[in-house]
Amino acid sequence: MNLLVLGAGQLARMMALAAKPLNIEIRAYDVGSNQVVDPLRPTVTFGALTDGISFADAITAEFEHINHDVLALCEQSGKLYPSSQAIKTGGDRRLEKQQLEACGAANAKHAIIALENDFRQALESLSLPIIFKSALEGYDGKGQWRLKSQADANATWQDISTFLLAADPKKKQGIIAEQMVPFDREVSLVGVRDQSGNTQVYPLAENHHTNGVLSVSTALVNEKALQAQAADIFDRVARQLEYVGVLAIEFFQVGDQLLVNEIAPRVHNSGHWTQQGAETCQFENHVRAVCGLPIGSTALIRPTAMINILGEDTLPTSLFSIPGVAIHWYGKEKRAGRKMGHINVSAATSAQLKQSLELVAEALPDDETFSDIKAYINKI
Amino acid sequence: MNLLVLGAGQLARMMALAAKPLNIEIRAYDVGSNQVVDPLRPTVTFGALTDGISFADAITAEFEHINHDVLALCEQSGKLYPSSQAIKTGGDRRLEKQQLEACGAANAKHAIIALENDFRQALESLSLPIIFKSALEGYDGKGQWRLKSQADANATWQDISTFLLAADPKKKQGIIAEQMVPFDREVSLVGVRDQSGNTQVYPLAENHHTNGVLSVSTALVNEKALQAQAADIFDRVARQLEYVGVLAIEFFQVGDQLLVNEIAPRVHNSGHWTQQGAETCQFENHVRAVCGLPIGSTALIRPTAMINILGEDTLPTSLFSIPGVAIHWYGKEKRAGRKMGHINVSAATSAQLKQSLELVAEALPDDETFSDIKAYINKI
Repeated sequence: MNLLVLGAGQLARMMALAAKPLNIEIRAYDVGSNQVVDPLRPTVTFGALTDGISFADAITAEFEHINHDVLALCEQSGKLYPSSQAIKTGGDRRLEKQQLEACGAANAKHAIIALENDFRQALESLSLPIIFKSALEGYDGKGQWRLKSQADANATWQDISTFLLAADPKKKQGIIAEQMVPFDREVSLVGVRDQSGNTQVYPLAENHHTNGVLSVSTALVNEKALQAQAADIFDRVARQLEYVGVLAIEFFQVGDQLLVNEIAPRVHNSGHWTQQGAETCQFENHVRAVCGLPIGSTALIRPTAMINILGEDTLPTSLFSIPGVAIHWYGKEKRAGRKMGHINVSAATSAQLKQSLELVAEALPDDETFSDIKAYINKI
Repeated sequence: MNLLVLGAGQLARMMALAAKPLNIEIRAYDVGSNQVVDPLRPTVTFGALTDGISFADAITAEFEHINHDVLALCEQSGKLYPSSQAIKTGGDRRLEKQQLEACGAANAKHAIIALENDFRQALESLSLPIIFKSALEGYDGKGQWRLKSQADANATWQDISTFLLAADPKKKQGIIAEQMVPFDREVSLVGVRDQSGNTQVYPLAENHHTNGVLSVSTALVNEKALQAQAADIFDRVARQLEYVGVLAIEFFQVGDQLLVNEIAPRVHNSGHWTQQGAETCQFENHVRAVCGLPIGSTALIRPTAMINILGEDTLPTSLFSIPGVAIHWYGKEKRAGRKMGHINVSAATSAQLKQSLELVAEALPDDETFSDIKAYINKI
């Protein structure tokens, strides 16, 4: 079977690694070069997008910010999973909020802003602090503004309106104002829905961010009530979107309640731990679902955490000697802050996982990002 | 780091899949075409053997029957692990027996045969039944003759001498006569030795053969004494060969004693279960060792068995729904009896593994090979 992935980054690469043993051939459409490439060897090319579409039995995406013309072309072929509507929903916070409301998934109080008048109304309908997020193309903390005091409102609007005026009018950029939630922690749920509507969800993960970028995800072992709440929201959202494939939902946990922060219509960084920690990893399950195969068990094998490698392209080899450590590099060129790879750490029990994580923290270099990660690990 | 593998079959492919996340680039020398290829996409070629040698930081082999000129050329570069001597030992039963004797590893009583006189002497020094095995190039039961009664001795010698006369004189073919061991079962040990001489061994596996070909390997969970005995032999053999990389030792178990049947200087079919069942799989550990990286933990994660897929290129998709099942196809063209892929089955306990194996057996088709496998599984 042949699968075309829109996007040729690390997620397509890890899908290809998971698909090879299934004899599923993956090619990836590189949106930068407009070429179809081998995600495991991007110097090997296979022509243009139309060639990729003809080659494929199924088409999917590794990220949500795909040109709408490309999505339309793929959808016309009848092979695209999830649908372009689901992918676009993940790429536009306005659509996302509409869908969350439509299926009754709890989320932070918000308003949609296009003009200054909307901005002023939002200041009245929402309590401070408020976070303003670009509706399109914002991720990892980019395109966001925080307003803590009414005194700064004019300056914030100035920033936002400058941003909106600079945006490409064809793309219809906008802003979502969200009442900031005093959350206890951020967790996320990765799950999968097959072409017949069956779903399976992985255990929730607790997420830690460093400079606005995910840096550690730890699978949660004994959170039955929270897990049930998250699974219910997953089912609502996935059904609402008639979703096929892996879908990730990020939550703010406030006391016992989960509020949806955002959804990602794809395999997700907070699910990378499943490569070592779950019966079937998110990459294989996504490939299975979009290719029309039965999805596999998402059960936890053993306690596992993931640490992102941000902006580094080497690590001490002493990490290899720590039991339960698996290193995943993405083969990318080093750039400050870039997601270069991740480390999965597994152990038989949560207590042993804590010990292994402490050994890993000791072995990691002392750069800015890893220092924050070490502080977090030592607090767990 | 760059690694050249001599041989471009499924073992090179699985090494490449394990090496990608380590940012280790693997190319494979296809001994059929004399071309260096991408083992994950063999249509992509990288020139001749000499190009592969220049490209590589380290060189290894996926099988022991490599042309000696090729081994010499690789060894000259100073990059070959394990040594050509170790690889040749795995490819010549005469050298193998010498090395086993030299390090005191118990093995079946045997004699080396070149001429009829040797054959007659072997009949006197060994008790019947005797198995005669070609010294070179015999595997999976090929090039073997069994003698159960003195009355058949002349006919057996006729077959053997015809075989020897037909052999290429440059290759110096010969025969090993081995007293057949009334063994209780066949087990094997896969282990790894790094460039500093540190070793780690995986749990022993119990092996079942169908028509002389390995068909099921099950990791043994509670065999402390046997495991210690096997580990001791592993250390002797690996030290004797100054071995670097993964080495497999096949044993006959007779009561409480292990007799070495044969050694394989490479990753081994009976170690495929480690992909799902061990902290670090045999492919990653081999790559690490030959590339000079620290080797990883070989501890069992959970009870796991492997079932070979012989001569089939499709399986019922219902297998995907059984928890703990991982399917590994090799991307090869279907041929009767050919190793086309394998299925790893894992579970939290041995009792649960038995249940999962029974579900797998039910789902498998009823061809001749699978019927034998099913009978074996249902007897476990």
